Amino acid sequence: MVTRIAVLGATGYTALELLKLLRRHPEVEIVALTSRQESRPHISEVHSELRGALDLHLEPLDVEMLVGKVDVAFSCLPHAASAECVKPLVDNGVKVVDFSADYRLNNVAVYEQWYGVTHPDPDRIGKVPYGLPELFREQITGSSLIANPGCYPTSAILPLAPLVKHGIIESTGIIIDSKSGVTGAGRNPKLPFHYPECNESIKAYGVGTHRHAPEISQFVTMSGEENAEVIFTPHLVPMNRGILSTCYLQPSKGSTVADAIDVLHTTYKDEPFIRVTSNPPETRAVRHTNFVDLHVAQSGDRLVVLSCIDNLIKGASGAAVQNFNLMCGYEETTALL
Amino acid sequence: MVTRIAVLGATGYTALELLKLLRRHPEVEIVALTSRQESRPHISEVHSELRGALDLHLEPLDVEMLVGKVDVAFSCLPHAASAECVKPLVDNGVKVVDFSADYRLNNVAVYEQWYGVTHPDPDRIGKVPYGLPELFREQITGSSLIANPGCYPTSAILPLAPLVKHGIIESTGIIIDSKSGVTGAGRNPKLPFHYPECNESIKAYGVGTHRHAPEISQFVTMSGEENAEVIFTPHLVPMNRGILSTCYLQPSKGSTVADAIDVLHTTYKDEPFIRVTSNPPETRAVRHTNFVDLHVAQSGDRLVVLSCIDNLIKGASGAAVQNFNLMCGYEETTALL
Amino acid sequence: MVTRIAVLGATGYTALELLKLLRRHPEVEIVALTSRQESRPHISEVHSELRGALDLHLEPLDVEMLVGKVDVAFSCLPHAASAECVKPLVDNGVKVVDFSADYRLNNVAVYEQWYGVTHPDPDRIGKVPYGLPELFREQITGSSLIANPGCYPTSAILPLAPLVKHGIIESTGIIIDSKSGVTGAGRNPKLPFHYPECNESIKAYGVGTHRHAPEISQFVTMSGEENAEVIFTPHLVPMNRGILSTCYLQPSKGSTVADAIDVLHTTYKDEPFIRVTSNPPETRAVRHTNFVDLHVAQSGDRLVVLSCIDNLIKGASGAAVQNFNLMCGYEETTALL
Amino acid sequence: MVTRIAVLGATGYTALELLKLLRRHPEVEIVALTSRQESRPHISEVHSELRGALDLHLEPLDVEMLVGKVDVAFSCLPHAASAECVKPLVDNGVKVVDFSADYRLNNVAVYEQWYGVTHPDPDRIGKVPYGLPELFREQITGSSLIANPGCYPTSAILPLAPLVKHGIIESTGIIIDSKSGVTGAGRNPKLPFHYPECNESIKAYGVGTHRHAPEISQFVTMSGEENAEVIFTPHLVPMNRGILSTCYLQPSKGSTVADAIDVLHTTYKDEPFIRVTSNPPETRAVRHTNFVDLHVAQSGDRLVVLSCIDNLIKGASGAAVQNFNLMCGYEETTALL
Repeated sequence: MVTRIAVLGATGYTALELLKLLRRHPEVEIVALTSRQESRPHISEVHSELRGALDLHLEPLDVEMLVGKVDVAFSCLPHAASAECVKPLVDNGVKVVDFSADYRLNNVAVYEQWYGVTHPDPDRIGKVPYGLPELFREQITGSSLIANPGCYPTSAILPLAPLVKHGIIESTGIIIDSKSGVTGAGRNPKLPFHYPECNESIKAYGVGTHRHAPEISQFVTMSGEENAEVIFTPHLVPMNRGILSTCYLQPSKGSTVADAIDVLHTTYKDEPFIRVTSNPPETRAVRHTNFVDLHVAQSGDRLVVLSCIDNLIKGASGAAVQNFNLMCGYEETTALL
Repeated sequence: MVTRIAVLGATGYTALELLKLLRRHPEVEIVALTSRQESRPHISEVHSELRGALDLHLEPLDVEMLVGKVDVAFSCLPHAASAECVKPLVDNGVKVVDFSADYRLNNVAVYEQWYGVTHPDPDRIGKVPYGLPELFREQITGSSLIANPGCYPTSAILPLAPLVKHGIIESTGIIIDSKSGVTGAGRNPKLPFHYPECNESIKAYGVGTHRHAPEISQFVTMSGEENAEVIFTPHLVPMNRGILSTCYLQPSKGSTVADAIDVLHTTYKDEPFIRVTSNPPETRAVRHTNFVDLHVAQSGDRLVVLSCIDNLIKGASGAAVQNFNLMCGYEETTALL
Repeated sequence: MVTRIAVLGATGYTALELLKLLRRHPEVEIVALTSRQESRPHISEVHSELRGALDLHLEPLDVEMLVGKVDVAFSCLPHAASAECVKPLVDNGVKVVDFSADYRLNNVAVYEQWYGVTHPDPDRIGKVPYGLPELFREQITGSSLIANPGCYPTSAILPLAPLVKHGIIESTGIIIDSKSGVTGAGRNPKLPFHYPECNESIKAYGVGTHRHAPEISQFVTMSGEENAEVIFTPHLVPMNRGILSTCYLQPSKGSTVADAIDVLHTTYKDEPFIRVTSNPPETRAVRHTNFVDLHVAQSGDRLVVLSCIDNLIKGASGAAVQNFNLMCGYEETTALL
Repeated sequence: MVTRIAVLGATGYTALELLKLLRRHPEVEIVALTSRQESRPHISEVHSELRGALDLHLEPLDVEMLVGKVDVAFSCLPHAASAECVKPLVDNGVKVVDFSADYRLNNVAVYEQWYGVTHPDPDRIGKVPYGLPELFREQITGSSLIANPGCYPTSAILPLAPLVKHGIIESTGIIIDSKSGVTGAGRNPKLPFHYPECNESIKAYGVGTHRHAPEISQFVTMSGEENAEVIFTPHLVPMNRGILSTCYLQPSKGSTVADAIDVLHTTYKDEPFIRVTSNPPETRAVRHTNFVDLHVAQSGDRLVVLSCIDNLIKGASGAAVQNFNLMCGYEETTALL
């Protein structure tokens, strides 16, 4: 019996990647796509890539209609709007992978401060597994709601959390300098993402103020310790996809590059999607894949951790499918290798 | 005594390039910039490139204010809106270089059919020099209004008009396959020009319907003959600037590549901005310059003419400065080499 | 029982794409990779994308060793070098998909003229199916050697051959203006493909002299007629992958756009990889897929056919897998959707 | 009387930019270009941009020939090779701007350790002004030899040196995360800079080992203090030109963003090429200019300094012309605004 799928907010780049991945999944049927567009366009009018591949029209979001009709919903809705739908869906037995930030932070006040809205479903906060299977597989397996991680946080937490946990690095003074392709900014046309404005140029943005900072801070320290102290700077790079995070870390007394590499190797030795590389990684090597490439080097008295992902796959839709597989009891790598 | 300049519609890419060129012109002073924005932003808030280089605020367009205050206006306004301003400016003694299509076509009906508007200044139609100095220098010199050519037409007319005039090629069955960088689409953010939509992709657009077709058709045959019969297809290429036009031409009885090259060499031997090249040209070589690179090759029974310009310089603002120099009696190459 | 595969000349871009596709094929095992490099590097040292995905070393090509060890070889070797290996492999029962041009043309003299070498296996010339399943499925099915088509020819032949066959267009005066991403030039570093040389620039190359011209010419007319008369101009576009061909065609007496679209729809109605689109296609929509997007428009008295493929997939490795599936009796779309 | 110029090693990108700038300089005549190529190609065969603009052939380097024939030489030769020519040129009265690293470091041993060669002219080490006019104008003026700074060092030293000097930041624990366009890697074709390899990808390189680190370290502290302790990581970004350096700094007790901005404003208030910006700068805004855009922000307990230059202009050839102007008594901004 196939699992019936809905994708909410299907006009963006993460939805497109999700649909392309799900088409390869032998156990699913995509039965509903939603958007706010009243014209109910065919999906191929929105994503020409899907012409001939998926025969569905976008329809307005209708929670009641979805309940009963679908088993799992992937929500690509914006924050707050997402939780407003997720709540009734989960309450009525629909499993959800939520791409928004609504269920990631474990503190309602912190969420409301950074996102500037009242949380529509505060009771679930702190109880929803964070969708990094490499760190939280047990909680994710069989769960009915997953907070799919942010793209930057994924690139930073996967290498840093084990290093903090095993005492290789200090959890203070962590500097994360991240570089992202432009799909990370979404598909809504705005001047900063107009082709001639961002082509042949690089810039930092949201210096000291980006909403992924508290998410990184919370999950770099996982087990009851205080949140890590993180300086996070995202940059916009003239390419479609990919994130490279360059992390500058204070080694704990006596820790070496070799120690750091050991911890990463040991922690991730059975992980199908994590590769510890012997050369500085390039985003090219993970493009269109669910892989994470990690590397550690020394620079002066710091450890430098380099981490590459595809922001739309492991940073969004690939992770979502990986979580979906765990929620529904499928082989974790289905549709992802 | 310097020439006092206004730039109308100063927020786009052609205006930015124009301002960068004019800053190098020793005989001009930029005294007014206009836009529809009510907030009257400083020009450096709109074009960060001009920070520290030009200290003016954008102000709403006020024709009366401009008369008396400026000697020459460059109009980067959209078609129809442009002629509405140009008319009173020229009537009141302000010289104008008009970037719009309003005074290019010599037939009001053709204009109104292709542009879908009533022409605001029909009496001047057919009397305004077309701003290709290499072909119409005499008419441009000292004139008070110039129709600055379209970018695609510039790339096509410069090589083709002399070949038609000297009987090297037929004026029928001309096929022009043009490729342009994205600045050609303007600075208004829209989905087709959103970075991830046009990066790493190429497409044709306006097949059989682009407004530059009648302009090319009219000026490829210059001296009383019927308009040329032109098939024109523009393409959008993932780069900021540059146009390459690949033109497929029927040689007149017996004409050879050598004949065509001879005509181009002879016609343009004293032109400071035209280069006939011995290898197929690349837009890279004319980037940020007012040069036109031309090349002729044989392919089967056709002559293939290749033509490269920078769409924002020779295709717009460089040509405008060249025309301005001729209108005002300055050395034609001032600020352009 | 799985099919054992070798990839000859595994260091280039087509080999990389082939390996990525074959990894998804449930019925194959990749058992050998060859290259001229004596150091026998691990494949992941050459293609970092394959780290953790394929555990093989490159080894020098040894035909005897391959016979018996593999069932099918994909040859990504250069022309002439390829036929030299293909001959003994096929003679000894190994099936081959040949990416080179060696078996595409049906005339040894034409081959030797365009490629400037003596053909190493002239007896097979004219007897090897050309690997466009949409046109030659019957011959390909069960065959032991396939001439995998060139990338430009694929983009041109698929739309044009049916239009010629059904008398919609003339087979003379065909103009094909093609635009390709830079992977089409291979992976060998040379100045024209050095990043700053081809980024932000477009150029034509091989005007009137490109080796794909006779291949297009031969297969646009398929059934005994004389070869078509084709003017072909390739261009280098600053993007990694994708080909757009803009074809200018003389309609046969009375033929319309609607007639052309009808023929394409009818010819390809059951084809899994061909899509006739209602808007001008973009290479973006076929990127990383085996799809071909086709469109017809009118421009003046010409029909303009637009055709998009991914040069590395439908233009090379995807087609190869499609042919492989037919040769070996697998479902034609396996590993391709 | 014009100044006669030679450019040594004229085939690379810095030489091309230099020649383009010098063409606008009213007081110079370019009289000699050298390269190792024996074929003595015309400069336009090497740099098609210069077709019609500069009529010189490349000739083998001959120091004796240059002495007497030229007043000033710009050396774009590689390290060590450069000092070997610079020594006899300066000894014989030719002024030199040296683009190589040969005269930048003030310690022969440090030079020889990082560059792995014996210094050909050790006696001059420590006596040659470092070509950042904003910091060393007095020493540069009238000097006969200038060590033109590295591109990354320029981007880092200009903002950081004044902040250290005025006690705003600590000179230890400085982290500089730099991002550069691909022209920074030179014009020699190699696989890592082959278009499809670096397009659509970002990577770090030389982590902890890049030769610009000691140069930055030396000049961030200018006045007798110990060298600064700098962690420097360069990255390769898919664009032609531009450097963005993101610097993470420990504020000295009590220092604020406002203090840092004050120091930059005060230090650079009369500088024609330095702009302190109120928003995070983009490399786009300094592209093709000699400007440096600087910005300071707070992130956690760190000051984050952002610095943008064009690596080929202020990072190389623009700085060289600026230094040349000071050496020869011309207005400092000639040919640069």
